[in-house]
Amino acid sequence: MKTWPVGMIGGAPGSFMGDVHRRALALTGQFSLVAGCLSRHPQQALEAGQALGLDPARAYTDWTRMAREEAARPDGIALAIIVTPNAMHLPVAAAFLDAGIPVLCEKPLALTLEQARHFAIRFEEKTNDMIMAYTYSGYAMVREARRLVQTGALGALRGIQVEYLQDWLADADSDGGWRLDPRTGGAGGCVGDIGTHAFHLAEFVSGLRCEALSARISHLVAGRAVPDDAQIQLRFADDTVGGLWVSQVATGCGNALRLRLFGEKAGLEWNQEQPDTLVLSTMDGCQTHIARAGSAVPTPSLLPRGHPEGYLEAFARLYADTAGLLGGHNAPLLPRLDAGLRGQEFIEAALESGARYGAWTALRT
Amino acid sequence: MKTWPVGMIGGAPGSFMGDVHRRALALTGQFSLVAGCLSRHPQQALEAGQALGLDPARAYTDWTRMAREEAARPDGIALAIIVTPNAMHLPVAAAFLDAGIPVLCEKPLALTLEQARHFAIRFEEKTNDMIMAYTYSGYAMVREARRLVQTGALGALRGIQVEYLQDWLADADSDGGWRLDPRTGGAGGCVGDIGTHAFHLAEFVSGLRCEALSARISHLVAGRAVPDDAQIQLRFADDTVGGLWVSQVATGCGNALRLRLFGEKAGLEWNQEQPDTLVLSTMDGCQTHIARAGSAVPTPSLLPRGHPEGYLEAFARLYADTAGLLGGHNAPLLPRLDAGLRGQEFIEAALESGARYGAWTALRT
Amino acid sequence: MKTWPVGMIGGAPGSFMGDVHRRALALTGQFSLVAGCLSRHPQQALEAGQALGLDPARAYTDWTRMAREEAARPDGIALAIIVTPNAMHLPVAAAFLDAGIPVLCEKPLALTLEQARHFAIRFEEKTNDMIMAYTYSGYAMVREARRLVQTGALGALRGIQVEYLQDWLADADSDGGWRLDPRTGGAGGCVGDIGTHAFHLAEFVSGLRCEALSARISHLVAGRAVPDDAQIQLRFADDTVGGLWVSQVATGCGNALRLRLFGEKAGLEWNQEQPDTLVLSTMDGCQTHIARAGSAVPTPSLLPRGHPEGYLEAFARLYADTAGLLGGHNAPLLPRLDAGLRGQEFIEAALESGARYGAWTALRT
Amino acid sequence: MKTWPVGMIGGAPGSFMGDVHRRALALTGQFSLVAGCLSRHPQQALEAGQALGLDPARAYTDWTRMAREEAARPDGIALAIIVTPNAMHLPVAAAFLDAGIPVLCEKPLALTLEQARHFAIRFEEKTNDMIMAYTYSGYAMVREARRLVQTGALGALRGIQVEYLQDWLADADSDGGWRLDPRTGGAGGCVGDIGTHAFHLAEFVSGLRCEALSARISHLVAGRAVPDDAQIQLRFADDTVGGLWVSQVATGCGNALRLRLFGEKAGLEWNQEQPDTLVLSTMDGCQTHIARAGSAVPTPSLLPRGHPEGYLEAFARLYADTAGLLGGHNAPLLPRLDAGLRGQEFIEAALESGARYGAWTALRT
Repeated sequence: MKTWPVGMIGGAPGSFMGDVHRRALALTGQFSLVAGCLSRHPQQALEAGQALGLDPARAYTDWTRMAREEAARPDGIALAIIVTPNAMHLPVAAAFLDAGIPVLCEKPLALTLEQARHFAIRFEEKTNDMIMAYTYSGYAMVREARRLVQTGALGALRGIQVEYLQDWLADADSDGGWRLDPRTGGAGGCVGDIGTHAFHLAEFVSGLRCEALSARISHLVAGRAVPDDAQIQLRFADDTVGGLWVSQVATGCGNALRLRLFGEKAGLEWNQEQPDTLVLSTMDGCQTHIARAGSAVPTPSLLPRGHPEGYLEAFARLYADTAGLLGGHNAPLLPRLDAGLRGQEFIEAALESGARYGAWTALRT
Repeated sequence: MKTWPVGMIGGAPGSFMGDVHRRALALTGQFSLVAGCLSRHPQQALEAGQALGLDPARAYTDWTRMAREEAARPDGIALAIIVTPNAMHLPVAAAFLDAGIPVLCEKPLALTLEQARHFAIRFEEKTNDMIMAYTYSGYAMVREARRLVQTGALGALRGIQVEYLQDWLADADSDGGWRLDPRTGGAGGCVGDIGTHAFHLAEFVSGLRCEALSARISHLVAGRAVPDDAQIQLRFADDTVGGLWVSQVATGCGNALRLRLFGEKAGLEWNQEQPDTLVLSTMDGCQTHIARAGSAVPTPSLLPRGHPEGYLEAFARLYADTAGLLGGHNAPLLPRLDAGLRGQEFIEAALESGARYGAWTALRT
Repeated sequence: MKTWPVGMIGGAPGSFMGDVHRRALALTGQFSLVAGCLSRHPQQALEAGQALGLDPARAYTDWTRMAREEAARPDGIALAIIVTPNAMHLPVAAAFLDAGIPVLCEKPLALTLEQARHFAIRFEEKTNDMIMAYTYSGYAMVREARRLVQTGALGALRGIQVEYLQDWLADADSDGGWRLDPRTGGAGGCVGDIGTHAFHLAEFVSGLRCEALSARISHLVAGRAVPDDAQIQLRFADDTVGGLWVSQVATGCGNALRLRLFGEKAGLEWNQEQPDTLVLSTMDGCQTHIARAGSAVPTPSLLPRGHPEGYLEAFARLYADTAGLLGGHNAPLLPRLDAGLRGQEFIEAALESGARYGAWTALRT
Repeated sequence: MKTWPVGMIGGAPGSFMGDVHRRALALTGQFSLVAGCLSRHPQQALEAGQALGLDPARAYTDWTRMAREEAARPDGIALAIIVTPNAMHLPVAAAFLDAGIPVLCEKPLALTLEQARHFAIRFEEKTNDMIMAYTYSGYAMVREARRLVQTGALGALRGIQVEYLQDWLADADSDGGWRLDPRTGGAGGCVGDIGTHAFHLAEFVSGLRCEALSARISHLVAGRAVPDDAQIQLRFADDTVGGLWVSQVATGCGNALRLRLFGEKAGLEWNQEQPDTLVLSTMDGCQTHIARAGSAVPTPSLLPRGHPEGYLEAFARLYADTAGLLGGHNAPLLPRLDAGLRGQEFIEAALESGARYGAWTALRT
């Protein structure tokens, strides 16, 4: 079985996202991690490379050199995976794209919309080479939800509601690390960290584009440099309305990402914490709980009905699509550069509206 | 056992709210329905009185006469229950209050805030004589939720979210009756019909007052004279934020009223469709589902744990409190005239903010 | 509106079942409680009659006299409601039936099968005059479940599972009152007290008769005179298999009565603690949660979709049927004397099988 | 990072269990699949080896040769993974154990108890070299449940109920493959295929040993050679009672494995289809839903709270323990040969009791 050689920037062993990406890669059986620049601290980068069994020559301490040297090797990496703090996403991605190496990058794309736009213009021909890790679109039942909307199971959409609630910052003493520092995580706070996931999901599943928003942006725990709670009204194409609520101080919530769509004929609901089920509700009072991998579901999945798939399996689906893309296949559901740009526009519009007391603000792409 | 004689205005047999009030009265065992002006159509009023076994002399066709004559009888009614269309709430209530007869009235109080204010000023000394049927505050576990907030189980509140979703108007051909005619139901549409319940619940349970709001008010089914969907941002005292979403076109939803509160220490959730349970969530990842009538719950209820109480039992709790009030007892949880006025302010502020593209609008009491 | 005059034997105010019956009667609006022999202690019987507003002449201290005198009155009761401890069910019922007064009786019918059989033979022509209070068959969605089975929605049945779990006897110091004394409550303990409900439900919904059983009967809390936990294998007609598990020491359970049926085409589940929903599951991985009062449900109910009905509303449905029966209408779903006899056979077969280490034991009717 | 070289017998690509084992291996990052005898058909074995990227010299067509040659290689496999049909488990395991290679084997251990006993006696010193794939004990919250029982959170146990329901054989035309042929799958049918999992879970979590059982064993779909539904009463040590119900014709069920324990102080429930949550219920009416990876849970897991772990992650936990064992560490929770023998005793006792109309039958170890 052919496997694609890949490299990782950031994500030393023990970091949440680094481990997640490695497990997702492993689940597919289609990749080998052969190179890395796993920390900005040289000594840690070397040790991390050793811990992961990399050839010492490919355990880089400088990502610009990594991009250059991997591009030059006949057995160089086919994909660079970027799991650094947000501030480094763009420069690292640019280096690898410039070197001709496709990139899979954590969200959000950039720290500012202006940076993101320049980047998007510069690499606009590389759309297939810049994949964004919007993990949640990798869940089988999220893709099934999108399919149901497309087939008209809901009728014309009237409303889209998405909420993404966590509580890991509910304690005023929580250590939010680089995510709470605008220089490394961006000014968006919860809007960038989890709001972009929620926003991508709303557009991904509905197939509609959000045209304008009105936001309330809050710092519910005093003293933080970035917002920890936001509630945003959305207007989509076709006069569809919507709401998006994100919080990292919603006490008692783990990773409660929940999407609801309401159409003329039916409503549809998906909860990330019970990801194997979709609920389709109709006006006759019937709520149909549709199980992943049931015969009613054409969307493919890894495991049979009743054998839970989780977060890593969703992530692995993005990587399986990426392997397909590298092999020349189509991967229409995979988020690309435009999805990254879109997320940046969402963040900036939300912050702007919030600063203007909720004034309706257009998304400009 | 002494029972209080009561009369009803509106609510002929077969009408939803008339039957509900009669069953709730019966559940308490503390009232007898002895008089009524059950329809604005004289013939129907007489037939309805007969069907309910009223003395024909007390099956009125004119509520002004009913108020006058019942006030004059030595065995006259102790309470007038108003279940007419919204437009009649104020004039009927005024007639009975003027006649010295206490009133229990369906919400919303009035068609306009101006009317409501004049009424409230005129009858400001009659606060104990004007009870508003905010049904959902009668659920045992709503009262328990309020108690938990008061005892500090949640810590200081940071966020309050309430949603109230129905779908009975999702079909463009639905017959909304007088509720969709601004002359009889008011201009509020779903904001008045169910939004007032949601708003009352948020303030009742949190103990906080909403100071300002920003609303998106929509007519999702084309051609309606009143809104059928609204999403409203709320600001409460103490910088607590909130959201209120109501819809009567949320396909697949029956009567999905759901309240969530988030405090420094815990979150709390209540769903009307499973009313016997409260969920208290803490940052250690534990969600405690608290059962009505369990030994952990001091709030009294009618039935033992595991024997479901429903909507009628909640309504009966309001009437049991009302019987107490008539008997000279205190009933601090019973919504009065001020709650009715508050609901009217909410409707008007929401419509005004909606008309001004979501401009933040103060609630003025 | 005509109401039927009724009398109650047992059930002084404050007793669980007495209050439940009175509230259920009131919900129907079709009965008036006018007579009673509410306690076996004369002074308490008189005080209870006064508290309930009975004419002192009809607050009896002797139920034989009550039967005789009520039968002689032109305005005598049309129904005698028996809510005494189990030991008194048969003698009281016999007295009223002999006097020509129909009876609605709490379950179980008797203390022994032999007594029950004699009674059934003696009153075999009075089937319409002897109604058994199998409360749970009064839930709208239990009746809908029966209807779905009958219409073939499940295909031929293969398995029937019912469990009824409580924990009010889990504490060794619980005061079980007369229920734990075989002289007043019978030898069945949990088998008689709640097992009969579960057994009735299984036969009522499936439409099948249980032909034999094998039981494990346990005293999990030491020192009790009657069993507190039992697990019973069932064989129904048509080779359908089943299981019935009852416990009053299932820690953490309130009143967890749950029925599951499995047919060739679909499975069906109902939980008493969420009584407004039925779940129909099919082999394509879809579970349809069917809401009471949705347009998909022809079985009538009191309240619209989303407005919870509870235990009292189920009880009231039995009484509404009883009113119909008194008025000469048909009431095919109402449990009668044969259902009471059937319950007694179940108790006796279960105890016998348990005593013989689970030997399969036939139900002999 | 050192990885352990492993080989697989059975489990060609596309087979359910082969893929599952490979993904679970990959998730750990601690194993490399380097050898295999992946099919009993030589050509398929070679092609499967090629598809998985094996060195052709190690894509064996004969497992006896594989055992011999791998044992002789300096870089030979450290573990043989057996995913053949049941009939081959013992002979293959014996060959590898004889060659000094540890084995991880699918359940059930054997086709008959006699075979299993001989095997267990022969290899009784190899307990650390014979691991049984009781997958469900690898779920974090199953291990947490065991820990809670051990710490006394439930008090002394009174009852243990486990059910394992599937419907993939509900259709009379289902192709059950070798599982429905007693020569390859054993006579146990559903008892061996899924009952052994349920039985292991009951003993694993409770820490109690089942001493005797009484079984009803059924062929609910006519014409099958092995049973498809069984309901079994259990007696554990300390007079604890229990029930075990398995079905592969429970229409509408995917892989519904559910465990409930009742103790003097609390009840505990776990459902495999929502594996990240445990429910602890107490007599005060509180049900605490405990989330995996919450701070209240000391049992380690892979992912943070709210990021679902599923079936593959549970399986990977068994493999991570196995890697530890290979490295000389302790792995007290890993099922070994004795658990395999125990499962075989359960199957045989159940079949024997079923054949004797449910006679109580002792488990003899």
